[in-house]
Amino acid sequence: MRKVYLDNAATTPLLPEVFEAMVPYLKDMYGNPQSLHSWGDDAREAVEEARGKVAALLGADSDEIIFTGSGTESNNFAVKGLAMAQQSKGKHIVASAIEHFSVLHSIRSLEKQGFELTEVPVDKHGLVDPEEVARSIRDDTVLVSIMTANTEVGTIQPIGDISRVVKKSGAIFHTDAVAAVGTIPVDVGELGVDALSLAGNQFYGPKGVGALWIKKGVRIIPFLEGGVQEGGRRAGTENVPAIVGLGRAAELAGAEMKSRIEHLSSIRDKLIEGLPSRIEHSFLTGHPTQRLPGNASFCIEFIEGESMLMLLGHQGIAAASGSACTSRALKASHVLLAMGIPHEVAHGSLLFSLGVTNSMEDIEYVLEILPPIVDRLRSMSPLYAKYSKERNRGN
Amino acid sequence: MRKVYLDNAATTPLLPEVFEAMVPYLKDMYGNPQSLHSWGDDAREAVEEARGKVAALLGADSDEIIFTGSGTESNNFAVKGLAMAQQSKGKHIVASAIEHFSVLHSIRSLEKQGFELTEVPVDKHGLVDPEEVARSIRDDTVLVSIMTANTEVGTIQPIGDISRVVKKSGAIFHTDAVAAVGTIPVDVGELGVDALSLAGNQFYGPKGVGALWIKKGVRIIPFLEGGVQEGGRRAGTENVPAIVGLGRAAELAGAEMKSRIEHLSSIRDKLIEGLPSRIEHSFLTGHPTQRLPGNASFCIEFIEGESMLMLLGHQGIAAASGSACTSRALKASHVLLAMGIPHEVAHGSLLFSLGVTNSMEDIEYVLEILPPIVDRLRSMSPLYAKYSKERNRGN
Repeated sequence: MRKVYLDNAATTPLLPEVFEAMVPYLKDMYGNPQSLHSWGDDAREAVEEARGKVAALLGADSDEIIFTGSGTESNNFAVKGLAMAQQSKGKHIVASAIEHFSVLHSIRSLEKQGFELTEVPVDKHGLVDPEEVARSIRDDTVLVSIMTANTEVGTIQPIGDISRVVKKSGAIFHTDAVAAVGTIPVDVGELGVDALSLAGNQFYGPKGVGALWIKKGVRIIPFLEGGVQEGGRRAGTENVPAIVGLGRAAELAGAEMKSRIEHLSSIRDKLIEGLPSRIEHSFLTGHPTQRLPGNASFCIEFIEGESMLMLLGHQGIAAASGSACTSRALKASHVLLAMGIPHEVAHGSLLFSLGVTNSMEDIEYVLEILPPIVDRLRSMSPLYAKYSKERNRGN
Repeated sequence: MRKVYLDNAATTPLLPEVFEAMVPYLKDMYGNPQSLHSWGDDAREAVEEARGKVAALLGADSDEIIFTGSGTESNNFAVKGLAMAQQSKGKHIVASAIEHFSVLHSIRSLEKQGFELTEVPVDKHGLVDPEEVARSIRDDTVLVSIMTANTEVGTIQPIGDISRVVKKSGAIFHTDAVAAVGTIPVDVGELGVDALSLAGNQFYGPKGVGALWIKKGVRIIPFLEGGVQEGGRRAGTENVPAIVGLGRAAELAGAEMKSRIEHLSSIRDKLIEGLPSRIEHSFLTGHPTQRLPGNASFCIEFIEGESMLMLLGHQGIAAASGSACTSRALKASHVLLAMGIPHEVAHGSLLFSLGVTNSMEDIEYVLEILPPIVDRLRSMSPLYAKYSKERNRGN
């Protein structure tokens, strides 16, 4: 059976070049970067080299990069650490309604300590309006957190425009760029943000490693406390092999970004054009053009996403319905609901996230396999039967 | 030049068997365990198999194991999450004076939220007296955190005796077992604790992964928030290869523990007996018998630890002075100070932490190389010159 992995939003495969870069640090170069001997020196040099590569991808300085254990940790660290560092100035936070739960739940736990959240709505394409952000900012707003791009629907936010609005207020601006970094050009200077989260497993680097970029001079309270690693800002023995892998992945992403975007956009567009024309009552979700190159997300009406995933899986195709972090909760995506998609339709969400290992043939295979699956599921759907009956009566 | 790694307390090498177990999950089996397809299924099964292996090493149930990103994260999670979950009952915490900074600094940050810490002293061997713990516990004590073994001086605490004391109070008992798990038998039932931290890179598993064991029914507030991973208690994409490595390392540790302890104890004892007899004004730190099998820690008077490390390094020998997490801070170890060792003597601490890759020849090499290094450094030490002058005058 053909095996087609189209769930790169959940996690990307590790590129062979990245694996090869990691191997020496999983074998002989096992030192702790904090140690005062040659094993430690080798490990420390590798970490600093990787730091430079990640910084280069972002147009940042090396000493602005803090390595973490995941995108989720970067977001927890940023939201909690930046808000706590600013709390003498105010306790109001602004975030979009479609942030990842690692941002939204972090803010929810700050609410127990007296912080307040204003959620900025999005339009039907999942776009945040900078004017809405401006209206949400108050005198006591200390932190604004708006994601660079949404992993579920692919919409890319106008971060540059939003940052101009935020800057007028003096609030700190954090962006969750986990879905964006390594996939589209992300330059911290151009974005005009103060802090930015990224994760290795989103651009063919390893799991278990992420980074938080913080602009020089911006204060943050440490989240993981203990040793003096990462300039005293993130304790815990550095995960050297994973950090080295992240660095190599960043280097490759920078070098290959243009060609990757061209390839991904072309196969994505084939899917975006082909799917709705082959399947009745289906539509693209997210922004039609301002979207991640590998993201093709849809709603297929009258069907539950999970059943589609199961039948696609039987044909060797990996896809998702909602985000991986919440897929097992089997709840309608808060992102789709915020975009005004009704609850029952949101349950039929289907996300194909394309990666560099995918080919046009993979897309053609999906376009061949999916329509009969949808027909089969609809033939078993009471909702669809009711709809068909009403439609026939109308005719 | 001979290369002798005697800094296993900083981090252990990855065993080849552990590396081999990880490779498939760094290559083809790259799925996200939360995904609803075969890539996800493979990853999830691997994570659950590893969970069973870690649980087996501890005599625990699988669903009591929460994977984390490091021992430091486990300690932050335990201290903050357990204290916050209990805060309606009281805000007093008891911990020993020689806890790792990931425990002590976590408690310090809770102090800003109204918690109070009572530090239990240790004796000259680094031992905690259960009676002292009993005296420290108050009506409003909600959490006691005492480490199983100290990584710097090797002392193993009487956790079973301490837990009997803690249980009378109704407080939650956490033990940082990062230096102990995988090295000495650790059975959560025998210890009688409620929560226990461990780290992969302390027993020939990978960096970037740890675990927190929490007894069924004990409440904890999540530390990393976001997705529903680890039963909603620890968000973030599971670091599958590292978790698989941790599981394999746990399995090997269980199978080989007896022979490892025999081997390590015998080469450690050679060093513990040989070093003070070859070097004047040096002494063993930590407990003479109740100590980790691989730990040989000393104070060498009239010398700074860093200079010794440098010269040992020139001869291919890796050792440490204080813990790796704080070595670059170049401060006297809080552990040694708490044991009553004077500040200037604590600066001359020297820790050889032995691992399964070490041989008796490694120890003989150290015993040959170190004495002339000490002589050379003392010949340059104004303190030693002053001491010698006074001694000669005394004669």
